[in-house]
Amino acid sequence: MENKYVYSFGEGLAEGTADMKNLLGGKGASLAEMASLGISVPPGFTITTEACLLYFDSGNRLPRKLWAEILTHLGQLENTVGKKFGDASNPLLVSVRSGARVSMPGMMDTVLNLGLNEETTQGLGHQTGDTRFAFDCYRRFIAMFGNVALGIDYGRFETILARKKKKRNIQVDTDLTAQNLESIIHQFRALIKKNVDEEFPDDPMAQLKQAIQAVFLSWNTPRAVTYRKLNQIPNDWGTAITVQAMVFGNMGTSSATGVVFTRNPATGEKKFFGEYMINAQGEDVVAGIRTPNPIAELEAEMPEAYNSLVNVYQKLENHYRDMQDLEFTIENNHLYMLQTRDGKRTVSAAIKIAMDMVYEGLISKQEALMRIPADQLDQVFHPMIDSTVTSKALAKGLGASPGAAVGKIVFTPERAQEMAEKKERVILVRMETSPEDIHGMSVAQGILTARGGMTSHAAVVARSMGKPCVSGCSDLHVDFRKKKCSLNGTILKELDSITLDGTTGRVILGAVPLIRPRLTSNITRMMSLAGENRTLTIRANADTPHDAFVARDFGAQGIGLCRTEHMFFDEGRILLMRKMILTDDPNKQAETLKKLLPIQRGDFTQIFKVMEGLPVTIRLLDPPLHEFLPNASKEIKILAKEMKLSQSALVKKISSMRETNPMLGLRGCRLGIVFPEIYRMQTRAIIEAACKLVKKGMKVFPEIMIPLVAHVNEFTKVRDEIVEVAQEIIEKSEVKLSYQIGTMIELPRAAITADEIAKEADFFSFGTNDLTQTTFGLSRDDAGSFLTSYLEQGVLEKDPFVTVDEAGVGSLMKIAVEKGKSVNPDLHLGICGEHGGDPASIEFFHTLGLDYVSCSPYRVPTAILAAAQASIKHR
Amino acid sequence: MENKYVYSFGEGLAEGTADMKNLLGGKGASLAEMASLGISVPPGFTITTEACLLYFDSGNRLPRKLWAEILTHLGQLENTVGKKFGDASNPLLVSVRSGARVSMPGMMDTVLNLGLNEETTQGLGHQTGDTRFAFDCYRRFIAMFGNVALGIDYGRFETILARKKKKRNIQVDTDLTAQNLESIIHQFRALIKKNVDEEFPDDPMAQLKQAIQAVFLSWNTPRAVTYRKLNQIPNDWGTAITVQAMVFGNMGTSSATGVVFTRNPATGEKKFFGEYMINAQGEDVVAGIRTPNPIAELEAEMPEAYNSLVNVYQKLENHYRDMQDLEFTIENNHLYMLQTRDGKRTVSAAIKIAMDMVYEGLISKQEALMRIPADQLDQVFHPMIDSTVTSKALAKGLGASPGAAVGKIVFTPERAQEMAEKKERVILVRMETSPEDIHGMSVAQGILTARGGMTSHAAVVARSMGKPCVSGCSDLHVDFRKKKCSLNGTILKELDSITLDGTTGRVILGAVPLIRPRLTSNITRMMSLAGENRTLTIRANADTPHDAFVARDFGAQGIGLCRTEHMFFDEGRILLMRKMILTDDPNKQAETLKKLLPIQRGDFTQIFKVMEGLPVTIRLLDPPLHEFLPNASKEIKILAKEMKLSQSALVKKISSMRETNPMLGLRGCRLGIVFPEIYRMQTRAIIEAACKLVKKGMKVFPEIMIPLVAHVNEFTKVRDEIVEVAQEIIEKSEVKLSYQIGTMIELPRAAITADEIAKEADFFSFGTNDLTQTTFGLSRDDAGSFLTSYLEQGVLEKDPFVTVDEAGVGSLMKIAVEKGKSVNPDLHLGICGEHGGDPASIEFFHTLGLDYVSCSPYRVPTAILAAAQASIKHR
Repeated sequence: MENKYVYSFGEGLAEGTADMKNLLGGKGASLAEMASLGISVPPGFTITTEACLLYFDSGNRLPRKLWAEILTHLGQLENTVGKKFGDASNPLLVSVRSGARVSMPGMMDTVLNLGLNEETTQGLGHQTGDTRFAFDCYRRFIAMFGNVALGIDYGRFETILARKKKKRNIQVDTDLTAQNLESIIHQFRALIKKNVDEEFPDDPMAQLKQAIQAVFLSWNTPRAVTYRKLNQIPNDWGTAITVQAMVFGNMGTSSATGVVFTRNPATGEKKFFGEYMINAQGEDVVAGIRTPNPIAELEAEMPEAYNSLVNVYQKLENHYRDMQDLEFTIENNHLYMLQTRDGKRTVSAAIKIAMDMVYEGLISKQEALMRIPADQLDQVFHPMIDSTVTSKALAKGLGASPGAAVGKIVFTPERAQEMAEKKERVILVRMETSPEDIHGMSVAQGILTARGGMTSHAAVVARSMGKPCVSGCSDLHVDFRKKKCSLNGTILKELDSITLDGTTGRVILGAVPLIRPRLTSNITRMMSLAGENRTLTIRANADTPHDAFVARDFGAQGIGLCRTEHMFFDEGRILLMRKMILTDDPNKQAETLKKLLPIQRGDFTQIFKVMEGLPVTIRLLDPPLHEFLPNASKEIKILAKEMKLSQSALVKKISSMRETNPMLGLRGCRLGIVFPEIYRMQTRAIIEAACKLVKKGMKVFPEIMIPLVAHVNEFTKVRDEIVEVAQEIIEKSEVKLSYQIGTMIELPRAAITADEIAKEADFFSFGTNDLTQTTFGLSRDDAGSFLTSYLEQGVLEKDPFVTVDEAGVGSLMKIAVEKGKSVNPDLHLGICGEHGGDPASIEFFHTLGLDYVSCSPYRVPTAILAAAQASIKHR
Repeated sequence: MENKYVYSFGEGLAEGTADMKNLLGGKGASLAEMASLGISVPPGFTITTEACLLYFDSGNRLPRKLWAEILTHLGQLENTVGKKFGDASNPLLVSVRSGARVSMPGMMDTVLNLGLNEETTQGLGHQTGDTRFAFDCYRRFIAMFGNVALGIDYGRFETILARKKKKRNIQVDTDLTAQNLESIIHQFRALIKKNVDEEFPDDPMAQLKQAIQAVFLSWNTPRAVTYRKLNQIPNDWGTAITVQAMVFGNMGTSSATGVVFTRNPATGEKKFFGEYMINAQGEDVVAGIRTPNPIAELEAEMPEAYNSLVNVYQKLENHYRDMQDLEFTIENNHLYMLQTRDGKRTVSAAIKIAMDMVYEGLISKQEALMRIPADQLDQVFHPMIDSTVTSKALAKGLGASPGAAVGKIVFTPERAQEMAEKKERVILVRMETSPEDIHGMSVAQGILTARGGMTSHAAVVARSMGKPCVSGCSDLHVDFRKKKCSLNGTILKELDSITLDGTTGRVILGAVPLIRPRLTSNITRMMSLAGENRTLTIRANADTPHDAFVARDFGAQGIGLCRTEHMFFDEGRILLMRKMILTDDPNKQAETLKKLLPIQRGDFTQIFKVMEGLPVTIRLLDPPLHEFLPNASKEIKILAKEMKLSQSALVKKISSMRETNPMLGLRGCRLGIVFPEIYRMQTRAIIEAACKLVKKGMKVFPEIMIPLVAHVNEFTKVRDEIVEVAQEIIEKSEVKLSYQIGTMIELPRAAITADEIAKEADFFSFGTNDLTQTTFGLSRDDAGSFLTSYLEQGVLEKDPFVTVDEAGVGSLMKIAVEKGKSVNPDLHLGICGEHGGDPASIEFFHTLGLDYVSCSPYRVPTAILAAAQASIKHR
């Protein structure tokens, strides 16, 4: 069979349906569907996306057969409406509108009122008895065609129009007389003649052909290409084109045009919402030349049309079972629908609409959950910039941790603490942050850095703290000595106020008002629905009792990753830590570890209490020891004195611990094997804390996790030490304590040899951050120099540190799951990397058959929802 | 059926055979085999290794059944020899000797003359009419039993003996009278009484039981455990024990004992070789108290026994079809064989013996090849220390690149060059080397470093240069300012002479004479045999025409890895390189690249010429750019002047390029994607050089290799650029040039997604160095801090940078091979990591089905032999 490239619709019939979006585009499919539903749409036909690709494949030429098929459908359209294209006495005018599979708002082109020339304009005037209207259509057509098909800047037409209005002292377009418009038309044609070699085509057929080609080509304008790259829309989808009989909202005061939503897209309220404009065509509403009226006023002005519209919107919402975004035109009191599509909405609105529709019986609970954009859910939990206040950004970085923060800028963590003690709200501004900055970060409202990406230290820590962060703001330059910074040239000094928008990455001068969104009953209901509909358990990554509390409050069912290293950065502890690391004397080391023991035991006691009845996975010390060492000369001085060493000897010792590639150096379980006393102390702290609480009648489920295992022998060696220490304490305590010992799977070798390791381990927790780094051979800290370029050039589609790389890292995980389960069917499987809070990744983890994901406390709701969605989708 | 734990032998019969080594140990199996062959061995029985394990499993107790089985066999032995164990009038004496599956020389214990006490010693004297002999046996027994079963240091017995000899002014043991010996026996017993709670057991049964247990336990002495760890012998093999009727080499001048080899173990010469001692027991030969006589002299002294020995040795060599290492005892002119086993030999000897035996028709060519230890083969190609000269090592490091080097020490590459120009031989001594040291390394005789392992920069480069290197010599401390170093406390100043043994890691003071081994015709014949018997092709890693020449000379069939980065470290070039890297001006960059083009083209022209007719794989620039940047302030000064920059600005720029984990940073194809002009220049240089030579009628087969690919899109992006540049040049040149474009597989992600990449690539070359680093998450540069400890503790069995880790890295390679071949059956597969020169790894690569391995030029013969062995083994 020959390919069919053109599909007609109108008069209650259509060749297409709503589910043919891929072929007809969103607009074409919705028009076909509305026509089939008996809703009044101007008749027309849609040229398919396949035709678009054929056009490109033919070297940007319209194949003769395609053009013939178009002409056939054009003939049918003439018959349907009883007008003739190019006929001076009874002219058919058409719109030529782009429409891709998914909406690409404003990215591609449209031409209205096509088919006009001197004669047909005259004919239109005679036919309607309204010369002004005819000229209004003609000037609109020339400008749009001139812009779309001939490439003249649209602004130049607008300038001519504005100049005329000014000259005639006219405020609104509708006050332009026929004479004014005729003069404008002459000027428009003159502008085109001056700028384009070819004559403006007066032949309607030539107009149609050129317009179709121009709309096809608009698929490949740079802005469209960029938009697709940003939104991950494949280039080979192409656009469809709908050619449709014109209806006129500009045919006097009984005509109008408008855009409406079936419910409020900002709040979700079930109330018809939108705007209309009398005597106007669609683009006037968008252009904002006149202020449109709220849709409610239409009821008084055109009661009949309004009632039709209400009927149609209810019909469409019921039909599509979702909030619709509608475009309509009223021509002489008769309503025509031009478009219907699912309306964009805020997350809050999405939640309310979905919950309401469940209540209304319109959709199932599962459908409702699928309607909430999980990746944006945390917006409803973070304070945000009051969007009613306009503000201009000084600079833009990466929206690294969502929410907004207002405060006075400081450049050192010490200063941040100082100011925080004075109850000042501060924003910590750094080139980049390091673990030594933690105390400053923890008291700041937000963090701004010049370097580092979405997974930089600043970003990760900020997200785990639920603090807004803008990272990688390359227009930021800090002069620490002068306590000043410049943002895109604006000089700010210490304690100047700024506002960060951690969602969008904007940095705004001054204190912008923030609002804290309230958790509505809809959110609560939605979350509980999500909780019921998922199979994945959600845990949180929490290192402190406070984090644990927040996580539990958000619905976390345990802690999947409690990092023990952050515990050592507290003042007092860090000094002990440094002494332990830097001494060569095993006795002194043991002594220091003895001092750290009660502190660690205290940490774990608090966390176990908060998480009573739920599992807590504690990772033994992981980072390279030199991360704990001081850099600043002041700190070195203090430490040297404390250790009774010369400063130069200390500096030498410190520098001897530096590594070429610390990420691949002496860290993780390697520490535990080379310095077994550290893990023994940590095990003692965990088990002693747990035993004491169990003795008091509490339920405690510690899970001890060994990091950076590459070989099963590493695991068994450390595990045997843990068991030895733990058993001794448990026996002495005379309590029953069940604990588990498992490992991170964060190195390719661990994944590949997972069967060997699974025989020995109670659980696996995928450390997808490090697994991504080693699988790609890509350091997060250094990736900035090329990852951006990779994403821009399309070498990588997505940042693998944000969404898990299924083909590479994911394949390794799959191997690990299969091999692990094959020898140990009881193996408990989780993931605790940054990907644990990313909905796309969570869906993948669900399909892998993991038992839980663990994410930062503030991502727990997102993860719960994403888990439910994954579960529903793959039921 | 009940387990059988004891096997008898003797009198032409045996329950065991030669191939029961696992059960009977090497010694037990050889005795059984010799008995079956009708060779005269003292009769006895062997207690199996399974009995040993049973003993350990029973909590170090002899199960009653086992003891009963031993006693049954002891009874049979009494019947066979017509003597009775413990019978004062006709006593049976036995030896109790350990014997594991493989020889563990001197590691485990043996007791001779067991069964003696006051009465039986008297009986033995009466029976033989030789009281002195009886006392000699008794004193030997007490000392050995006291040492082995009662734990008294053997030296204390020797001291008593020595004191007696001194007192009596006696030179050799045989001059001790019966009286002397009796007095010694009293002193021995007194020594034991004083040091051991229990009485010395006079009951022969108790002696036997204790001796058997002591020998079993000697399997687990620390020295035995360490030996097994070093030689990768599993702990759960256990040892067998042979209990055997004593025959006496110390029964006067018609008795003797000796050790002989059927051929010369040092040279391989086909000549009976060994030593004997009259009136002695076995341990006297080893102890070196008297000088033994060359075996040839035995012919005159005991012609009958000598003839028997010649018959036996010929019989045994023919039977075992290999050179044998024999132990024998002559008792009253009657020859008894106590042991036969394959004799250890030098590599040269191994080659000669194997080739001779092929000629003699004793073994097949394939068997001959299997007999050469491939991992030691390069010994025959490197100059070596004259082993006839004794020398003492000042310090010991890692034998990182084999061979020996003599020279005067220098501490900087500049000084090395300076001295080399004066025709001085120098040894470059560094803390560690970096690419900037290349020019110094290339003129030095050998390299000594304080830091870095077997695969450190120094080691890799030295091996690729075929230069001896001792790395990681922790007792080396260098004071660069004073131009001095200390080696284990000995202070050396610049230009003092030392000798390095790169095979053993020894550093020797002064110039030790070196000898250059000549390549014998046997070596040549063996290599050509190996060449015929392998399926793997062998290529070499060579960056210079000289390396390429050496490689080809050694039989390399192409270059598998030509690194282009080393080419830029030459003076003159490095400055250009630095300017290119450090400028932000694309014009200046292009200008500099233009200057580098003819230089690179020249490099490739030379290499193509040397390798005419063979493939040359050229890897595009791989290392992080900052590796090219200067560190020394002098160099920075020069560069700043050259670039017209302030020094501080330059330092800032340089430090901005530093990376946290350079190994995982901006390198490999990432460079090619971010700075495409570099790869374009390199492609141009390769293709222009090739086209020019083809035009002259030469055959050139360039293979362009893209490094560090993680994602197929990286490969296609760079490949498309290469093709574009190459096609333009080829068309312009009007020649036919076929070239290939492939990739390194050196990241786990590349291996996992090999099917996607293989669709686009002509070849894969496994970069097992980096693949090992990323699979393990282990940086070679930093592994020193824990890898040694891992190997010592048995966490890892082998250094994964020396022998490829089959379970992890190997599995990834297997996945890559299978996935790659599944979509591209023509895919050419090679490996160019350090493992390409390691025989164990080569065997694995053979089984993987790779097409070639590429190794350093000096390892080519090793690789050829290893490939042949793999091919024969897996035929």
